[in-house]
Amino acid sequence: MEEEIKAEVSKGTSLLDAATSAGVQINSICGGEGICGKCKVIVDNGEVDVGSTSTLSREEIKKGYSLACQTWIRGDLKVTVPPESTATQGKILIDEDAQKFRALTSDGVGSSVKYEPLIEKHYLELPEPSLKDNLSDHRRIYRELRRKKNVPIMQTGLKVFKRSSSLLRDNDWKVTATLGRRGDTTEVIQLEGGDTADTNYGVAVDIGTTTVVAHLLDLVTSETLDAEAKYNSQMQYGEEVTRRIRHAEEDGREDLQETLANDINDLIYALVDRKGIRLKDVTSVMCSGNTAMLHFLLGLEASHIRKKPYVPNTTKPPPIRAAEVGIKVNPRGLLYFMPAIGGWVGGDVTSGVLSTGIHKRDQLTMLTDIGTNGEILIGNKDWMMSCAASAGPAFEGTGIRSGMRASRGAVDKVEFVEGDLIYSVIGNTRPKGICGSGLIDLVASLFEGEFVNRSGQLEPDDSDRIEEEKGELKFILEEPAETGMDGELAVYQAEIKNLINAKAAIYSGARILLKSLDLELDDLDQLLIAGGFGSYLDSGKAKTLGLIPDIPSEKIKFVGNTSIIGAKMALLSQQAYEESREISKSVTYYDLIDYPNYFEEFTAAKFLPHTDLSQFGSVGITEQSGGDQTE
Amino acid sequence: MEEEIKAEVSKGTSLLDAATSAGVQINSICGGEGICGKCKVIVDNGEVDVGSTSTLSREEIKKGYSLACQTWIRGDLKVTVPPESTATQGKILIDEDAQKFRALTSDGVGSSVKYEPLIEKHYLELPEPSLKDNLSDHRRIYRELRRKKNVPIMQTGLKVFKRSSSLLRDNDWKVTATLGRRGDTTEVIQLEGGDTADTNYGVAVDIGTTTVVAHLLDLVTSETLDAEAKYNSQMQYGEEVTRRIRHAEEDGREDLQETLANDINDLIYALVDRKGIRLKDVTSVMCSGNTAMLHFLLGLEASHIRKKPYVPNTTKPPPIRAAEVGIKVNPRGLLYFMPAIGGWVGGDVTSGVLSTGIHKRDQLTMLTDIGTNGEILIGNKDWMMSCAASAGPAFEGTGIRSGMRASRGAVDKVEFVEGDLIYSVIGNTRPKGICGSGLIDLVASLFEGEFVNRSGQLEPDDSDRIEEEKGELKFILEEPAETGMDGELAVYQAEIKNLINAKAAIYSGARILLKSLDLELDDLDQLLIAGGFGSYLDSGKAKTLGLIPDIPSEKIKFVGNTSIIGAKMALLSQQAYEESREISKSVTYYDLIDYPNYFEEFTAAKFLPHTDLSQFGSVGITEQSGGDQTE
Repeated sequence: MEEEIKAEVSKGTSLLDAATSAGVQINSICGGEGICGKCKVIVDNGEVDVGSTSTLSREEIKKGYSLACQTWIRGDLKVTVPPESTATQGKILIDEDAQKFRALTSDGVGSSVKYEPLIEKHYLELPEPSLKDNLSDHRRIYRELRRKKNVPIMQTGLKVFKRSSSLLRDNDWKVTATLGRRGDTTEVIQLEGGDTADTNYGVAVDIGTTTVVAHLLDLVTSETLDAEAKYNSQMQYGEEVTRRIRHAEEDGREDLQETLANDINDLIYALVDRKGIRLKDVTSVMCSGNTAMLHFLLGLEASHIRKKPYVPNTTKPPPIRAAEVGIKVNPRGLLYFMPAIGGWVGGDVTSGVLSTGIHKRDQLTMLTDIGTNGEILIGNKDWMMSCAASAGPAFEGTGIRSGMRASRGAVDKVEFVEGDLIYSVIGNTRPKGICGSGLIDLVASLFEGEFVNRSGQLEPDDSDRIEEEKGELKFILEEPAETGMDGELAVYQAEIKNLINAKAAIYSGARILLKSLDLELDDLDQLLIAGGFGSYLDSGKAKTLGLIPDIPSEKIKFVGNTSIIGAKMALLSQQAYEESREISKSVTYYDLIDYPNYFEEFTAAKFLPHTDLSQFGSVGITEQSGGDQTE
Repeated sequence: MEEEIKAEVSKGTSLLDAATSAGVQINSICGGEGICGKCKVIVDNGEVDVGSTSTLSREEIKKGYSLACQTWIRGDLKVTVPPESTATQGKILIDEDAQKFRALTSDGVGSSVKYEPLIEKHYLELPEPSLKDNLSDHRRIYRELRRKKNVPIMQTGLKVFKRSSSLLRDNDWKVTATLGRRGDTTEVIQLEGGDTADTNYGVAVDIGTTTVVAHLLDLVTSETLDAEAKYNSQMQYGEEVTRRIRHAEEDGREDLQETLANDINDLIYALVDRKGIRLKDVTSVMCSGNTAMLHFLLGLEASHIRKKPYVPNTTKPPPIRAAEVGIKVNPRGLLYFMPAIGGWVGGDVTSGVLSTGIHKRDQLTMLTDIGTNGEILIGNKDWMMSCAASAGPAFEGTGIRSGMRASRGAVDKVEFVEGDLIYSVIGNTRPKGICGSGLIDLVASLFEGEFVNRSGQLEPDDSDRIEEEKGELKFILEEPAETGMDGELAVYQAEIKNLINAKAAIYSGARILLKSLDLELDDLDQLLIAGGFGSYLDSGKAKTLGLIPDIPSEKIKFVGNTSIIGAKMALLSQQAYEESREISKSVTYYDLIDYPNYFEEFTAAKFLPHTDLSQFGSVGITEQSGGDQTE
């Protein structure tokens, strides 16, 4: 399959340009900026000038690889383009409708905060120097910036200095400075010739234990341009956070660090590719996620999070250069983190508070973030307390044989109507699987239809859709002929039990937190339900399942993926980012394991809706209904 | 000469340790920290773990080089030690006495400033975390530091975070933090286990156009431990600053950057080697030098310094990591610069003011820094004005055939006694050459002895030590048989003219600055003479030559190498460093070329001592004495 192509180009041409002019397509996402590292080639012989090789590994350099965009021709040469660099690969993510459906919630973030992004661009027209005004180039830029804006202490890296003198003169003293907030100082992270102030993008990322979601923001208009989601590839190292921490202890932190950085890169690539944006114009990334994810992405030691007293390495890492952890945006672009609260209550909860405004209100609010690592917070403007309940990935459509992410083809709603179950599918296609909200609906409907009893056991006598397979019962929602998948769409007995365990973890966590605060359910003015499925959850079904407390529906509000909403607010508003730091300091962590009857509470919640039916009066189940109950 | 040595070591041993245990000496200056890059080896085959390769070039990696100290054995392997890595090379600099003589002036810096170095170490004993006190490791360290000291805003790099959790626990919560000032923030640049607070070193460097001097400081005791000097290897690219700038314009900035970084590394290696200090314990480097040198070391564009209005890229670069410009100390150690005043008045002048206290005194003072790039400053606590006079390297013992640096074997003093010239040699050896102060003395003595006339012409009829060689006259100070060099010690006609041009540049600069300020010589309360030869200069001779103004001797003070003294003060005192920033802002630059009669003033100064003898009444020369004069 090897083909030899000859071409003549002028000296100083980059190999990438030379290849293009010779009709050889080489992968490149960043547009020749040395960022994406996709345009690897091997110079077999000949003389070249080599620029940045920072995206290449030591092994690759030893094998003679260089980046086509960072290699300039000095004479006759022969170059091999390895197969991985030819531009025939498919898109990384193709599920375009899906993320529109679920990942991109219309949140009006842009209008809810004081607009002043963490990374701003300022166009400057500098006065030309004279003997009377012969400030250094460096101070001249600072002076002009300070005339425009009250910027705190400034700093600039050597790489920016190095290019600045020519840049100013080549562009007739008209340049655009990109300013990034780093704590109490401001960094001039980039200087560009001319006016580029209208080209400035940021990415907000919600790093969930199971799902990673990214939104692309136009930092000039504050608009959310697009969204993308994928499963967290770290799942290969364990579904639960503690398993992954143990993996890092045994095999090093690199696996977890690299898979997560790659996931984020995949999402960013998909977004910029679709929107026709250059990677170098993405100047900032804001991550929100639990504290372990923060450690994994930074390559920090997370071991001590999993052991009492659950001490993280850091909760508020300073912004660093995204490139430092392998995130490929502008090489000098900054990576921010939503400040975490403690080892088990992360920046996602801080985001939740920020985006819902709990910290500013009188009303006593409970915020429940339903995910693999469920978090519950109770409080108001005077105080806030939070705990974590490990639920596993059942809510996110994984960990079950027919599970899938909430995207095109996923069963997202199930109802028990006139003795049978009916369902709807995202995108109105044949079902390809079932997502988190669909699974919650399904199990609640099975219970309503009395196909499962209060302890979650399938009742084979009550439906011919319940069958046995290798000694395990399953409920067949759809026959193979009617699905878009390779076989039937079914839920198995063990999977139902898993979901019940997950909801028990969340519910008992909420209950213990209330009890430990000496509060009754009635004391709550509001219950906010956050999570990836957000507004798509049916609150009646969630109560039937016993996932959320039995509180009047008018007090319940679904608030969507507050982790990413908060991240976007902070990225767009220095003030919101500052607020998030205050929030993270003012929340107290409550350790559920410390509660004397933790295990009893958890066990009692492992029934539908609960052992103690008085806690779910509105669901209308009596001891008699719903089949057997083992106490 | 190749020899095959076999050895058995345990898995995980570094190649450096393995080599040592096998009796193979491999070069290493940093003690296995991956800093010095001297222990290069080639792994021919076998499995290894490779750590840092940051000191290796792309070409070296391609050839299979790795650092022996950063390569750990995982199984059977074969390694080749290239000849450049075997420890049989000579010392870089051997002239130990010399630098004691000249480079290390006893300046009492330690006692003259408020001791609080820019880089400090603090030993911390942290309380172990508990559920009640479960701050992150990061915040726990910050809290303890703030209990010890009022530290402004702090920041810590990812590399320090990464190791911190294990480090704290492995060392029973007892660690030493190294804090570095970076503008208005403080960086935790390093954490070490246990108490290492008494091991903290810094290096002050005076980067002269011709000579580079380094002093090693114990930052704990504020003592100067040792000093070292060498010629600036950039001389190969031009003796004068403008020539070097042109070299950078034509051939890129790398040559100048690398030679200077290498010179500084050579000096540092020599110092730490002699004192038995590990490179990793050198946490800071403070450079003082003219503005072009600052640009060269940072790899910045200096082109615009040489053209009106002489705009530098920067005068006050922020501290950066020394490793960023290839200076090999602690990999996270900081590189500071004395703030410069303008394109032609550098941080060396700021140092001069700082160390002499001109900016705090009522007395009107003139400071003359005699070097290749001579600088003159006049002022007091109310105002300061400065100019630059390019003198060339004659004052530093180079640019003349018998010239040498002020080190062992150099003629440093010459006197005209009873009709003949007598001289003294540093270290009382046979003369190997003549240094700057010797040359000044020599030419002044030749003039006193009437062996040269007022225009600097050798008078062959007046001495049998004046001979002709290839049409050029020379004065033979010592015959070949009596010197320690390969031939006679002589000074040539053109070299004498060069020195006279140099002194004319300095003198006319001083005179123009006075005139432009409407001041008379009598208005000066003090004349401070700074420079590498500092206190070794004879003021009578300097006046005879017309190098310094004819001012009463009691008003003249030799202040030594104020560039390095100021750098040391700033390194040892945050307050002094802050003061230096204020100084750099308060000095006005005066451009000599702007003076209407600049060329006339310069030409008039090209006689001994001057065309206008009334300016040198005390020298006692009349129109009749000293031979012919061409007007």
